[in-house]
Amino acid sequence: MHYHNTIYLDHAATSWPKPPEVINAVVKVMQEDAANPGRGSHQMAVRASRVLFHTREKLSKLFHVKNPNDIAFTSNTTMALNMAIKGWVKQGDHVIATSVEHNSVRRPLYELERSRGVQVTYIEGDVEGNIDVKEIVAAIQPNTTLIVVNHSSNLLGTILPISDIGDVARKHGVKLLVDAAQSAGILPIDVEAMGIHMLAFPGHKGLLGPQGTGGLYIASELELEPLLHGGTGSQSEALQQPLVRPDRYEAGTQNTPGLAGLGAGVQYILNETVEKIHTKEWALIQRLLEGLGNIKGVRLLGPQLNRPRTGIASFTVSNRDPSELAFILDRNYGIAVRSGYHCTPLAHQCAGTESTGAVRASVGVNSTEDDIDALIAAVNELVEQHDV
Amino acid sequence: MHYHNTIYLDHAATSWPKPPEVINAVVKVMQEDAANPGRGSHQMAVRASRVLFHTREKLSKLFHVKNPNDIAFTSNTTMALNMAIKGWVKQGDHVIATSVEHNSVRRPLYELERSRGVQVTYIEGDVEGNIDVKEIVAAIQPNTTLIVVNHSSNLLGTILPISDIGDVARKHGVKLLVDAAQSAGILPIDVEAMGIHMLAFPGHKGLLGPQGTGGLYIASELELEPLLHGGTGSQSEALQQPLVRPDRYEAGTQNTPGLAGLGAGVQYILNETVEKIHTKEWALIQRLLEGLGNIKGVRLLGPQLNRPRTGIASFTVSNRDPSELAFILDRNYGIAVRSGYHCTPLAHQCAGTESTGAVRASVGVNSTEDDIDALIAAVNELVEQHDV
Repeated sequence: MHYHNTIYLDHAATSWPKPPEVINAVVKVMQEDAANPGRGSHQMAVRASRVLFHTREKLSKLFHVKNPNDIAFTSNTTMALNMAIKGWVKQGDHVIATSVEHNSVRRPLYELERSRGVQVTYIEGDVEGNIDVKEIVAAIQPNTTLIVVNHSSNLLGTILPISDIGDVARKHGVKLLVDAAQSAGILPIDVEAMGIHMLAFPGHKGLLGPQGTGGLYIASELELEPLLHGGTGSQSEALQQPLVRPDRYEAGTQNTPGLAGLGAGVQYILNETVEKIHTKEWALIQRLLEGLGNIKGVRLLGPQLNRPRTGIASFTVSNRDPSELAFILDRNYGIAVRSGYHCTPLAHQCAGTESTGAVRASVGVNSTEDDIDALIAAVNELVEQHDV
Repeated sequence: MHYHNTIYLDHAATSWPKPPEVINAVVKVMQEDAANPGRGSHQMAVRASRVLFHTREKLSKLFHVKNPNDIAFTSNTTMALNMAIKGWVKQGDHVIATSVEHNSVRRPLYELERSRGVQVTYIEGDVEGNIDVKEIVAAIQPNTTLIVVNHSSNLLGTILPISDIGDVARKHGVKLLVDAAQSAGILPIDVEAMGIHMLAFPGHKGLLGPQGTGGLYIASELELEPLLHGGTGSQSEALQQPLVRPDRYEAGTQNTPGLAGLGAGVQYILNETVEKIHTKEWALIQRLLEGLGNIKGVRLLGPQLNRPRTGIASFTVSNRDPSELAFILDRNYGIAVRSGYHCTPLAHQCAGTESTGAVRASVGVNSTEDDIDALIAAVNELVEQHDV
């Protein structure tokens, strides 16, 4: 067992380590190109603008976005979701969400219930976090303007049927916002084919970029009220936020070095392919589920063995507090996992863990079978100790 | 003259190059500590939280903030200003601003005029960008809730009398928001002594940190409606944004590597002292003003020679388009300056350059007399060529 080197199984919080080319891209831009993009005609500023454009292009390739300028950069997924929800939902609108949404969706919606008289229907997931598309259809009202769902639950790893929900949205003239916090770089995403109108994604998880990056794809026919108003380096004389994209949704100086790193991360994904990464992560998580499933007192959350899911496995151990368990795994075994509520209290209600929380282990592109086996062995040892 | 190495005189847009310790801090955190701060109890997540706390502590020392948790991180100054203005100003309020404000203040205010029936009075600056505090006093109404001013104009370099404005705000029970985009790390700032209730600052200009960083100091007695709602890693079960600081104003994953770099940048400033940096930059800009002032057809904007100002000198050359001038300076002389409107159209009205724009040269901590002399010689040569 590795006591000295961290066994990092917290990729759903943020991926680590980053590929060396990501760090190199950040450093190169800080050293050579980090003028202010779009704020000057001098060559260094032009190079900085190009960094942003190249990252937009790579993201467009990954998500099948036709016009790279339909992607606006944000500092994280939360900002992208706030931009989408507060920018689209108007006074008196009705929104459909699910019970497996993260607080980055629930809290903006709750705020709009309070401030804009917005009505929200939460579709209940089953114990594995599955959502029945028919229930979404049944919830649609004449004033429904938005369906917001995550692609994969950050607690349960369940994969939601985005294409089917996209069909429903299209058919009923409702817009679909997908929270890709746990799927960007991990599951195939095609915004056109899947009927996604807005896609909020993190830069620092499955896309392997640095923290401080993320973005929102906004279908070209959508017009959002910007979350931020301010300087864009364009149309300085106008009092309104310019309409031109991406400027309209990118006020203020962008994170040029971080976005260079994100570009390198996305290139890594494009080279490896999302399909291969998902297959590898799925196999690792099945190995984990099998191993943990054989330990007395362990309860596994989310989909059954051999069913679709992302690289997330949450579990509880009878008579052991999840946070104590995670603490011992970290201090005594050098295994980094996360415990607690993971900002998604309703998903815990689905799983029946609302009073205890859970331990979450999550794999990434560089996770190995040894990492998985170390975690299984450690949990086994802890359960046995406790029984004595 | 340096044709091959860039002579970078665009520090008001972003500082460059960064001190090596800033880049090293970014790399070290990406390699060793970049777990998700506040989202786990494992040691790497704890180390990431400490990175954020140390940067908050250093900023508190620099700005004389008593409680580091009164500083919330943002991705840039624009986001900080949006957070302050939209979070504080209510339906029907009256706000006082000045004509030298950046679009990152004017555009959010314009948006609130439109959406919340807010009334805004812009105090006119004189030709040098000076603001008469008596005019601010005269503009105060019973429903005035906010005065927002920049500390130093990004076009003219004029320094506004913040302490005097702070006295006025305190006396009339109005809150003062200061845009420190051009003064953080460049001019001494003491939020208590100067009567500043909110201070919006960039990480990547005078504080020498990476792009993608910035922040907002919010006096502990102020309660803002958050700009972003979402996960904080705390009070997961609550539907409302938690009240505890800094979580309340920091939803979503923070830019840990960038903020480590910002911490290193602020430490550099604390070691050098703001006073020494300002003295050096002031002397360089006086040298530039003197040199340019001797060239036929050059018109200098902003305060007169030997008067207070920050390291910014904007100018026009008769019969030459500022953007053409900046372009030639870049391509033929390797000198990076900025041309155009600099996101501050009203300041151009003060200066009488609203139809032409201006060239802006701005110095930083690593600027030299040679850089200044190169710019003076280049402008001189260009003016002489043009006369022939």
